Amino acid sequence: MRVDIHTHIVPERWEDWASRYGGGRWPRLVHHDACRATIMTGDQFFRDITDQSWDPRRRLEDMDRLGIDRQALSPPPVMFCYWAEPRAGQAWARMQNEHIASVVARDAARFAGMATVPLQHTGLAIEELRHARETLGLRAVEIGTSPGGRELDDPALFPFFEACRDLDVAVFVHPATPLVGQDRMAKYYFPLIVGNPLETALAISKLILGAVLERLPELRVCFAHGGGAFPFTLGRLNHGWSVRPEAQAAIAKEPREYARLLYFDSLTHGARNLRFLVDEFGAGRVMMGSDYPFDMGSPDPVASIGEAGFDPATRTAIEGEAAARFLGAGAC
Amino acid sequence: MRVDIHTHIVPERWEDWASRYGGGRWPRLVHHDACRATIMTGDQFFRDITDQSWDPRRRLEDMDRLGIDRQALSPPPVMFCYWAEPRAGQAWARMQNEHIASVVARDAARFAGMATVPLQHTGLAIEELRHARETLGLRAVEIGTSPGGRELDDPALFPFFEACRDLDVAVFVHPATPLVGQDRMAKYYFPLIVGNPLETALAISKLILGAVLERLPELRVCFAHGGGAFPFTLGRLNHGWSVRPEAQAAIAKEPREYARLLYFDSLTHGARNLRFLVDEFGAGRVMMGSDYPFDMGSPDPVASIGEAGFDPATRTAIEGEAAARFLGAGAC
Repeated sequence: MRVDIHTHIVPERWEDWASRYGGGRWPRLVHHDACRATIMTGDQFFRDITDQSWDPRRRLEDMDRLGIDRQALSPPPVMFCYWAEPRAGQAWARMQNEHIASVVARDAARFAGMATVPLQHTGLAIEELRHARETLGLRAVEIGTSPGGRELDDPALFPFFEACRDLDVAVFVHPATPLVGQDRMAKYYFPLIVGNPLETALAISKLILGAVLERLPELRVCFAHGGGAFPFTLGRLNHGWSVRPEAQAAIAKEPREYARLLYFDSLTHGARNLRFLVDEFGAGRVMMGSDYPFDMGSPDPVASIGEAGFDPATRTAIEGEAAARFLGAGAC
Repeated sequence: MRVDIHTHIVPERWEDWASRYGGGRWPRLVHHDACRATIMTGDQFFRDITDQSWDPRRRLEDMDRLGIDRQALSPPPVMFCYWAEPRAGQAWARMQNEHIASVVARDAARFAGMATVPLQHTGLAIEELRHARETLGLRAVEIGTSPGGRELDDPALFPFFEACRDLDVAVFVHPATPLVGQDRMAKYYFPLIVGNPLETALAISKLILGAVLERLPELRVCFAHGGGAFPFTLGRLNHGWSVRPEAQAAIAKEPREYARLLYFDSLTHGARNLRFLVDEFGAGRVMMGSDYPFDMGSPDPVASIGEAGFDPATRTAIEGEAAARFLGAGAC
């Protein structure tokens, strides 16, 4: 059973959020023909996409071609809209969650769904999480690395993480703007290429030093892109904790102990990185992820894992067993 | 021949720069007794240090104990003072360069020196570089990751890199404030623990995409702390270049080709990281470095390298051969 934990989906169309709720930054889809469209944020070009982003039949063709049994579906981060007025943001999340749940309902053997929630308001986010879990049946939620400008160690977010634990919802964390250092990344497509892995490293470091995992060790949290830069910065984080009282005051055990409670996707862009990830965290913590259907992803995640030369048990774990555990019993 | 490429030194005392040049942020040393002092920046506490930071005899004792034949001496980054008025900054650099050269002159078998230069003004920096090389005999220069607020791909810095190439001076790049994302790192000692490796990854990425190494492939550049997060983010940088015209427009070959022209110190805080570094860049590009005498360093860099389980040839390369090549013929 091969599961791709990191894929993005949008509805084929949605109503004009700007005219209903005001605000010029709502994403909208401008279709060019049956297969191609552009995501705009207000009047700004954001990204060209194909029908792979909205048509489950196109996805199934690709999955069959690539030997993927199941995709976990989540919104692309531009669709988080944590900047929005909270009630509008909740309605926006609901629209996406209902769409994702409907795709899953039509083919639950091939798709699992992740919700999005309005984390600009913890109370509404928890409300939406409960709806997504209990009414729509979604067993995971995707969130940004600093949702609504709040860091993952912000006490205001903690009740949300508690709710995820209580509702048995897995958390998939994806880097999203504003990215760390984005003001220094105007050129070379650096926000996505360099900003994403640095942002992810900072977010994981904050989650750990914020004692979120110390307090909620049962919480299942996965970070996209193989944890970005984090796997390689963990050594320094660990050393810093061992010599610095400011860090020791925050958590009782060394950061590595908490890091090993996390999950990561396999999208590391290299066999050497992937082996490092598995070496450090164990195959049970690494899940196949492709970033389908975008160009910063892996065009063939099974082959990418194959290149690392793992033994069959390790490969099986990464290709699907870890995801089954992450998504929860019965989800796969 | 074992060389520690990454150690920091300050003079035991220096004149009051603030009263001579104005400005409240000049570092000053407040001695508490013969062995202990505090670095203040103006009236702000910066760091407590011991006489290891200023007394070559103490250093030699430690070197003998740890089996280190030679230390490369460089200022701690707080001493860069790129914020200063350029002429005052040049005098400040000159004071340090003369001090470092004097320590090297007294025991050239055990010490090599790195200059600092006022990179807030490229012309004065080149003037000081020439003086340090031709008059003081220093064969390396230490610089910050975004000196004077300029990124390493800033065209204004390029003549400085050209001068380093022309004068055959090796460049040691150390992360320094402002660090990427520092505004998000108020707690847990994160600027040094997390900020440094992220800043270094951004700086290397900019050096490469800024085509500095494409234009100056002979330039010898080393990044501290094993390149920070960079070794693990190179895969994504490479993939980004392969799919994105904005990145391909900047450099002709994939980023990895230029990355392999770089040197890195061995201060990775872990055998797994160090093996990754050597695997990716080759033993000839990795040099023993400890960050002596600070607590974010390795207390025993020879042992740290030993833990990685390398074959004898690889170990010899990391312990000294790579540094001999980096520092230039005759330097070791």
